[in-house]
Amino acid sequence: MKTLIDNGLIMSAEGKLTAGGIIMEGGTITRAGSGVSRETEDYDEHIDGKGRWFLPGFVNTHGHAGSTLLRGAGEELPLRQWLEQVMWPNEQKLDRDMVSAAQDLALAEMLRSGTTAFLDMYHLGIHDLAEKTSASGMRAVLGRGMIGFGGEAGWQERLDASADFIDSWHEAAEGRIRTAVMPHAPYTCPPAFMEKAASLAVEKGVLFHTHCAETRQECRDHRREHGLHPVDHLHQLGIFQLDVLLAHAVHITEAHMQILADTGTGVSHNPSSNAKLGSGTAPIPEMMKAGVRTALGTDSTASNNTLDMVEEMRLAALIHKGRLEDPEALPAADVFRMATSGGSELLGFHQTGVIQAGMEADFIAVNPHSLHLTPNLDRAAAHTAYSLKSSDVEDVWVQGRRLMKNKELVTLDEERIRFNADKQAAKLL
Amino acid sequence: MKTLIDNGLIMSAEGKLTAGGIIMEGGTITRAGSGVSRETEDYDEHIDGKGRWFLPGFVNTHGHAGSTLLRGAGEELPLRQWLEQVMWPNEQKLDRDMVSAAQDLALAEMLRSGTTAFLDMYHLGIHDLAEKTSASGMRAVLGRGMIGFGGEAGWQERLDASADFIDSWHEAAEGRIRTAVMPHAPYTCPPAFMEKAASLAVEKGVLFHTHCAETRQECRDHRREHGLHPVDHLHQLGIFQLDVLLAHAVHITEAHMQILADTGTGVSHNPSSNAKLGSGTAPIPEMMKAGVRTALGTDSTASNNTLDMVEEMRLAALIHKGRLEDPEALPAADVFRMATSGGSELLGFHQTGVIQAGMEADFIAVNPHSLHLTPNLDRAAAHTAYSLKSSDVEDVWVQGRRLMKNKELVTLDEERIRFNADKQAAKLL
Ligand SMILES: [Zn+2]
Ligand SMILES: [Zn+2]
Repeated sequence: MKTLIDNGLIMSAEGKLTAGGIIMEGGTITRAGSGVSRETEDYDEHIDGKGRWFLPGFVNTHGHAGSTLLRGAGEELPLRQWLEQVMWPNEQKLDRDMVSAAQDLALAEMLRSGTTAFLDMYHLGIHDLAEKTSASGMRAVLGRGMIGFGGEAGWQERLDASADFIDSWHEAAEGRIRTAVMPHAPYTCPPAFMEKAASLAVEKGVLFHTHCAETRQECRDHRREHGLHPVDHLHQLGIFQLDVLLAHAVHITEAHMQILADTGTGVSHNPSSNAKLGSGTAPIPEMMKAGVRTALGTDSTASNNTLDMVEEMRLAALIHKGRLEDPEALPAADVFRMATSGGSELLGFHQTGVIQAGMEADFIAVNPHSLHLTPNLDRAAAHTAYSLKSSDVEDVWVQGRRLMKNKELVTLDEERIRFNADKQAAKLL
Repeated sequence: MKTLIDNGLIMSAEGKLTAGGIIMEGGTITRAGSGVSRETEDYDEHIDGKGRWFLPGFVNTHGHAGSTLLRGAGEELPLRQWLEQVMWPNEQKLDRDMVSAAQDLALAEMLRSGTTAFLDMYHLGIHDLAEKTSASGMRAVLGRGMIGFGGEAGWQERLDASADFIDSWHEAAEGRIRTAVMPHAPYTCPPAFMEKAASLAVEKGVLFHTHCAETRQECRDHRREHGLHPVDHLHQLGIFQLDVLLAHAVHITEAHMQILADTGTGVSHNPSSNAKLGSGTAPIPEMMKAGVRTALGTDSTASNNTLDMVEEMRLAALIHKGRLEDPEALPAADVFRMATSGGSELLGFHQTGVIQAGMEADFIAVNPHSLHLTPNLDRAAAHTAYSLKSSDVEDVWVQGRRLMKNKELVTLDEERIRFNADKQAAKLL
C-alpha cells in the first residue's frame, strides 16, 4: 500500500520546514519534501496534512518504564533517603501486575507526546515490555537491568536471563526491537561483573548500556574504592571498545570527554532527572565540542516526573545557556538533532531519525496553529525547542503505521491504562 | 448571582487537595472546600466540577506583552548582537497595530495557560493594553516602561506619560487594574532619573518596578560607572523604602539579599528568560532563606519563548536543585506558592492567590485525568510543579467571571488574534 500525505510542512534534519508531503510504502519513506502532490503521484491512501508540521519522532534514550507508578511518590528527599525510604521499599512491593500497569502507562505517555523509539532498562518484567512494545507498534532497545550484588551465583543468573532475553527479542517485531546488555552502574556492579557483562555484549553483538558518573558522591566513592573515576575505570576494563551508551555522565572532566569521543561512546543526557535528584548538569556543550555523541532521555517518572521529550528538549535548550552564561550554548537545532537523529544513531536505529526517502517512516504531525507557536513564520527550530508543547502532537507513525490518529491512541487503550495504573498504584506504600 | 461548583478537588495554599466545591457571589468566594454540595446550599447557577482540580490562577509577575511578535526571532545570539540586530531594529519598526496584535496574542496565551493576573512593562501602547485587559476580564499591574536617555526634557515627558497613565487606570476595571512606575533598569536610567521616578511612585502611592542585576556584565559596568552594585545603588538612593518589585536579581550577594529582605523588596524570578539569554540563574532558594519575597514571571516571548507559567514552575522546581546539587532546594510547594499567592502579594492583589472564603474568585480548573498526572493519588503538589501541562487547564475564572470555558476563550477571539499576529509579524525584519 502506498500512502500519500500532502499539504504538510516537512522538517529537515537541520530544523528547516519545506512545504510538501510524504509518500510511504511498506513502512518506508519513498519520497519526502516539496513537489509531493495528488496531481503528480499515484497512491492507495491519501492523508491531508492540513498544514501540520511533520517532524521525525522523538527518541528517548534512557528510561525505566517499570517504575512509572512511582511518579510523584516521596518527593524532594536527599538521594539516600529517597532510595532507602521510597524507591527500594516500593520496588520490593512491585508485583507483575504493578510492573505491567506501569509499562502500559509509560508506553502510552511516550507515544502521546510524540516519542516513537525508546530505550528501557529494568530488572523486572522485561519480556512483558517486549511483548507490549511489539503490540504497541513502537520501537525500542530493551535490556534486563542487572546489579552485581549477591555473589557470582547471582551474577550468572542475571547474565543468563540477559542472554535469554537477547536471544528471544533481538531484531524482533520487524526490527523494531533491539536488545542490549545493561549492568546498572559501576557503583552497583563490581569490575569483574562489568567484564562478564561486556563479554556477553561482545558475544551477542549488542549495545552495552549503563548509568555512569551520575552524582559527585558516586565518583568520589568510586575513586576511594577503586582508585579511579568510573569513566577511567570502564575505559581501563576495555569496555569502551564496545558499542556503549552511558546514561548521565554528569561529573566528568575534559580528559573523560576525550576518552568518550575517541571511543565513539554515546551519552544519554537526562537534564530533568539530573536536576531533580540534585545530581547536577552534564557538560553537554563541552562534550559536543570534544566530539562526544549525545542524545536526550527522560529517565523514569520517579525522577523527572514525565516521559515528555518536548519538556526534555526545552530544558536542554535552556539549562546550558544559563549554566555557562552563554546564549549560544547548545542551539535549538542541536537540541532537536539530539532528540531525533542523535538518539536513533545511538540506539542503532540508523534507518530512522530523519524524514527522507529510504528511511523508515517514523514521524509525527504537530499542529502549529496555536497561540504559543504564533507568529508562525520561518522560526521552526526555535519554536520546536522553546515553545512546542507535547499537546501539539496530533499524529504518530512508526514504520509507516499510524499509532496515534488525531490525538487518539490506536494500539493502546488509554482509559483502561489510566484506570489500571491508579488501581495498581494503590498497592504502593 | 450565587454560583455553586461541586464535585471538585480544591487546592489549599499548601498544595493539598480537598474534595468539595466553591461558592461565589458577586466575584467573591463565600465558601470553599469540603461540604459544598447542591443538597446543603442554595444557588442560582450550578457548575459540575467533574473531578477537576481547582487551583488559584497563576500570577505572572514580569512581562512585556507589546513585543510578543518577536517570539523566535533571531535566536541564540550574544546579548549585544541580539539587542542591536534583532530587538532594537525590530522595536523601531513596531507601529500601533503591531503592538496591539502582540498584546492580544499575549493576553490570549496567558489566559489559555491559566494565568489570571500579570504585570506588564512597555514603552508603547500601554493605554491600549489597559483597555484590552479591562475587556478581557484579566487582572494586571501595568506601567509605562521608561528609559532615561535623551536628557531631562525626555525624562519629564516619560514621567508625565506615566503619571497620566496612573491617573487614568489605577484601581480601574473593578480594581482589576493596578498601575506602577516602571523605569526600565539602572543601566538605562541614570540615578537622577531613578530618583524622579521614585518621587512619582511616592506621590501616586503605587508600586515601583524595574529590571535589576540581570547580567554579570550589567553589574560590572554599573560598578565601573557608579562605584556600586546596582542593588547597593538603588538602596543608597532610598528607593527600597518604597514598595519595590525587581525583575531578575540574578547577580546578587548575600549582603544584597539582606537588604532586599530588610526592606521588603520583592523579586520576580524569570528562570527561562535568564537561562535563554545566558544571564544565569537567580539564587532564589538563598533569597528565600534570607527572607526575600519572591514570585515567578515569564518575561517576554522574545527571551522565553512562551508566556506559560506552568513551564516556569517546572523550570524553577528543577533548576535550583541541579545548580545547588540539592534535591531539597526549592520544593514543589514553594514553587506553587511563588506562582500563585506569592505573585498576588507582590502585585498588590492581596484579595487573590488562594481559594478561600473572602477572597476574590480568581481560579482555574485543571483536568487531572491524563497519562502524565497518573497515578492520581495524594501527590498534587509534586504533580503541579513537575508534571502538569498548561494544556490541562480547561477553565479560568477571574473575579468570578468565567474567561475560559472548556478550553474556549470567552472574552477573546483566538482565531482572529492568531491571524492578526501572523499578519502584523510579517512587517518585522
Ligand atoms: Zn536511569
Ligand atoms: Zn523584562
